[in-house]
Amino acid sequence: MSDARPAAVVLLSGGLDSTTCLALAVREGFAVHALSFRYGQRHAHEVEAARRIARRYAVARHVVVDIDLRVFGGSALTADLDVPKDRPVGGTEAGEVPITYVPARNTIFLSYALALAETTGARDVFLGVNALDYSGYPDCRPEYVRAYERMANLATRAGVEAAARGEVAIRIRTPLLQLTKGEIVRLGLSMGVDYAETTSCYDPDPATGAACGHCDACQLRLRGFAVAGTEDPAQYVDRPALRAR
Amino acid sequence: MSDARPAAVVLLSGGLDSTTCLALAVREGFAVHALSFRYGQRHAHEVEAARRIARRYAVARHVVVDIDLRVFGGSALTADLDVPKDRPVGGTEAGEVPITYVPARNTIFLSYALALAETTGARDVFLGVNALDYSGYPDCRPEYVRAYERMANLATRAGVEAAARGEVAIRIRTPLLQLTKGEIVRLGLSMGVDYAETTSCYDPDPATGAACGHCDACQLRLRGFAVAGTEDPAQYVDRPALRAR
Repeated sequence: MSDARPAAVVLLSGGLDSTTCLALAVREGFAVHALSFRYGQRHAHEVEAARRIARRYAVARHVVVDIDLRVFGGSALTADLDVPKDRPVGGTEAGEVPITYVPARNTIFLSYALALAETTGARDVFLGVNALDYSGYPDCRPEYVRAYERMANLATRAGVEAAARGEVAIRIRTPLLQLTKGEIVRLGLSMGVDYAETTSCYDPDPATGAACGHCDACQLRLRGFAVAGTEDPAQYVDRPALRAR
Repeated sequence: MSDARPAAVVLLSGGLDSTTCLALAVREGFAVHALSFRYGQRHAHEVEAARRIARRYAVARHVVVDIDLRVFGGSALTADLDVPKDRPVGGTEAGEVPITYVPARNTIFLSYALALAETTGARDVFLGVNALDYSGYPDCRPEYVRAYERMANLATRAGVEAAARGEVAIRIRTPLLQLTKGEIVRLGLSMGVDYAETTSCYDPDPATGAACGHCDACQLRLRGFAVAGTEDPAQYVDRPALRAR
């Protein structure tokens, strides 16, 4: 641990957004401690993608934590419910929370990230949430992120010690929060991110990991590449033609 | 789930404080969903105590979640460091955080509780933290609890839906926050809590689970019983005479 760079924790799902976040953290000069989760999910391919990406970026450390979210049930990502397909993008009504919502997921993920930040001395925690395309998840909104950061600085030894010096210890960094999917794709491509290695699909082919092309996540992603004027290099079982809007 | 009582989540460590919280929640008429954690801890006896207590109170459900906190290191409760013994009570300097602090522990625990609250429809989450005797843990302070509650209501489907009605969904209930250990013991005894079933020690005898009598937790507890004017019915390897202060 003779790394002179400041440490940052990056929540790395293996998807488009978190991989772009990782690239940003690396570009800012951080020694990255990547954190991924295995949780009763259909899409264990995500963890494999996260491992490939962590290796590619030669992170300081990649921690994979097992979480049994299945005990809580109640989500299409963790229970045996059907993932909605071919809905209009942003297909939830105003104020409606989609069935793919996992209870308190980002709160649990950020809490592990906070523990890892404390033990590594990291002050920056990167989370690839995105408010514009956020599909109605309450824990992807700016006001949630701000409230989490405030709580985190009251929760931790680092926060207490920094407050005594009039400083803020923990920063929850959400550089993608105000970007569209198209803008995220352009930003990533400008940093040389290889999106072929990333996976975003809620319902990938079990054997190959290829994306379905029809779930909300695939539709958002494909539309983002369409807006960016380039083709998504990831593997798809089916690749519907989506117009940029 | 035809239980007509409102649901509450109670974080149940099997110790004196959380057991008193459980008794309070039961007295208030809640259907209790107790939540305990097994985490790389020396004191797995805690989980057994929690199971006994959950059975005794006939809770609606007792969920035990495995958490591997050891990956984060850095604490005498999870790593191979020595638990401090026979320090003066409140033995940490002002602003000092004791070595028995586990990074982000209450934040991780509350985040699981929040997920369980969402899936059970519970609005009340009981946490047995105690600010007066809190031994310097940042995540036992009132300002931390308020910040967590604020974040929780922004994080969750229940919070979003309640906010649309001008209501607050999730309440982090900390009924012991302003009580001394002596007051907690008196309160529990008045409700018939059998403290023989609870365990608070940071370093219990591995074979019998008997409390050491000398760690911070034992000293706080024994002094609480001394203040309450009664004897702690729990098993101790050694029971030093502690004066009420």
